[in-house]
Amino acid sequence: MNIALDMMGGDYAPLEAVKGISLFLAEGHYKVSLTLIGDEAKLGPLLEAHNIPLVNITIVHASQEIAMHEHPTKALREKQQSSIAIGFHLLATGKTAAFISAGNTGAMLVGALFSIKAMEGVTRPTIGAYIPREDGTLGLLVDAGINADCKPENLNQFATLGALYAEHILGFKNPKVGLVNMGEEEGKGNLLSQAAYPLLKENKHINFIGNIEGRDILLNKADVMVCEGFTGNIILKMAESLYDLVLRRAVRDEHFDRFNFEIYGGVPVLGVAKPVIIGHGISHAIAFKNMILTAERMIEKELMQKMKEVFTVKSVS
Amino acid sequence: MNIALDMMGGDYAPLEAVKGISLFLAEGHYKVSLTLIGDEAKLGPLLEAHNIPLVNITIVHASQEIAMHEHPTKALREKQQSSIAIGFHLLATGKTAAFISAGNTGAMLVGALFSIKAMEGVTRPTIGAYIPREDGTLGLLVDAGINADCKPENLNQFATLGALYAEHILGFKNPKVGLVNMGEEEGKGNLLSQAAYPLLKENKHINFIGNIEGRDILLNKADVMVCEGFTGNIILKMAESLYDLVLRRAVRDEHFDRFNFEIYGGVPVLGVAKPVIIGHGISHAIAFKNMILTAERMIEKELMQKMKEVFTVKSVS
Repeated sequence: MNIALDMMGGDYAPLEAVKGISLFLAEGHYKVSLTLIGDEAKLGPLLEAHNIPLVNITIVHASQEIAMHEHPTKALREKQQSSIAIGFHLLATGKTAAFISAGNTGAMLVGALFSIKAMEGVTRPTIGAYIPREDGTLGLLVDAGINADCKPENLNQFATLGALYAEHILGFKNPKVGLVNMGEEEGKGNLLSQAAYPLLKENKHINFIGNIEGRDILLNKADVMVCEGFTGNIILKMAESLYDLVLRRAVRDEHFDRFNFEIYGGVPVLGVAKPVIIGHGISHAIAFKNMILTAERMIEKELMQKMKEVFTVKSVS
Repeated sequence: MNIALDMMGGDYAPLEAVKGISLFLAEGHYKVSLTLIGDEAKLGPLLEAHNIPLVNITIVHASQEIAMHEHPTKALREKQQSSIAIGFHLLATGKTAAFISAGNTGAMLVGALFSIKAMEGVTRPTIGAYIPREDGTLGLLVDAGINADCKPENLNQFATLGALYAEHILGFKNPKVGLVNMGEEEGKGNLLSQAAYPLLKENKHINFIGNIEGRDILLNKADVMVCEGFTGNIILKMAESLYDLVLRRAVRDEHFDRFNFEIYGGVPVLGVAKPVIIGHGISHAIAFKNMILTAERMIEKELMQKMKEVFTVKSVS
């Protein structure tokens, strides 16, 4: 199994990416080979300095970089030798099984959607976000911000994709799927959530538990929380800001510490044909390690295959 | 100045309402006379037990009650002798200057919209919610959940109404108005927020500071935070749940204590022609006191008059 990693993406690249690899290897993942894409002249010495043996590691030189604020489509087209462009090329041509980057989010999305493409049957790929819960597990909020305006069918597909991810990657048995809404009873909500509810209710691929409200999001009510990207983005950023608040108030609490979203790295793009993971720009070593672990698990569990099977069934369209 | 109070509304009525009046009077508000609407047989002894002098207090007997889960329109129509129906009758006929209830929210809304009616020029009245901030002030989130689906013009009106409330009642000079959105830059967002942005920008009655994100909501970035009621409801309930979380984690912190929404009572319906305040069902004494204080301030500051002046100007329509 080969996983490709953009070594130049993120605010602390390539150092934190190298440290992340070191953490990953320390856990003894012998079945995984890594393709590290980046500036060879920088990577070689760094890997050596961190005593990373080059067994099962290939360095692919990238002479260009896409900066964090470059225009995604333009940058991808014009910088064919950038680490992101090379990564998608390797993934598209089957030279690697997964691609991870904490670089330019827009370029990663464009690459995922246009070079890897949506799975057959998926109208809109999506990105989820983890929401820490009191029992130590992670809930999945989906969509976390890439699909601002959605149709009911989109929410239904997010639910299916999110449930498969929650089951196979987060380890929930028959994950509970809730529709983020402004009331508990069926029939409550805005036009979108009212129209999405019956679709979710009839969706045989998920364990739909009904509406969940704002007060349920930080609790354990649903394992997968479904909404359009506008609401999802606001929920996620509000949850992220809790950690800042807690730090400023000098509150020490194990649970609130888990609102430090830096540790989670990134969540995969769900609904594209191959594993693509987009990390947060501020990713540190542990985030890189976690993203490699997620990619490994996605491949091991054959998540993409499982998703494809569901979406070729007519009942989810 | 007369303020009418529904003594039978809320989970802890009439006892907590009586206690709230006691707290209010202890602060020496001699200019305010109160009309207490409720079961005379219950109220008399309770007022006596709490040593509330009947100077400036009138009891209006209500032989009926609207329960928390009754159908609003039906209950209001059929129970003309309920405290809520009597309250709106007193307000509509000018016998009182403001009406407060912690009772059936739907019935209060129906009463406000159909018996008092929207101000001329206001398409959709709205309800805000307070958001506690680290500096001890309260931000205003508007709409907090009554208008699930909105047009850009609605958001623009919420902004104007919220800004007037924030200036005259919450005491912000030239309050900063932010559009709740999924990105900072102009042009970001969903179709609604993209269309609302230019309207807010051109609105001469507000101090528009642009988009605010989910991470800005618990901070002091904007004094008035504008969104449709779907998002607003989820934000509010998520903020409310923080207090539960903090209690369960046994975190003691002065700022987080202010997420105990019980203390705020209620926020007025904004955009109806007269002051109507709908309290939370779980209102305790301090909430009742705060609602009377808010009504007093709304009358003193001639808030309705100020709102009417703005909405008769053509630029806000």
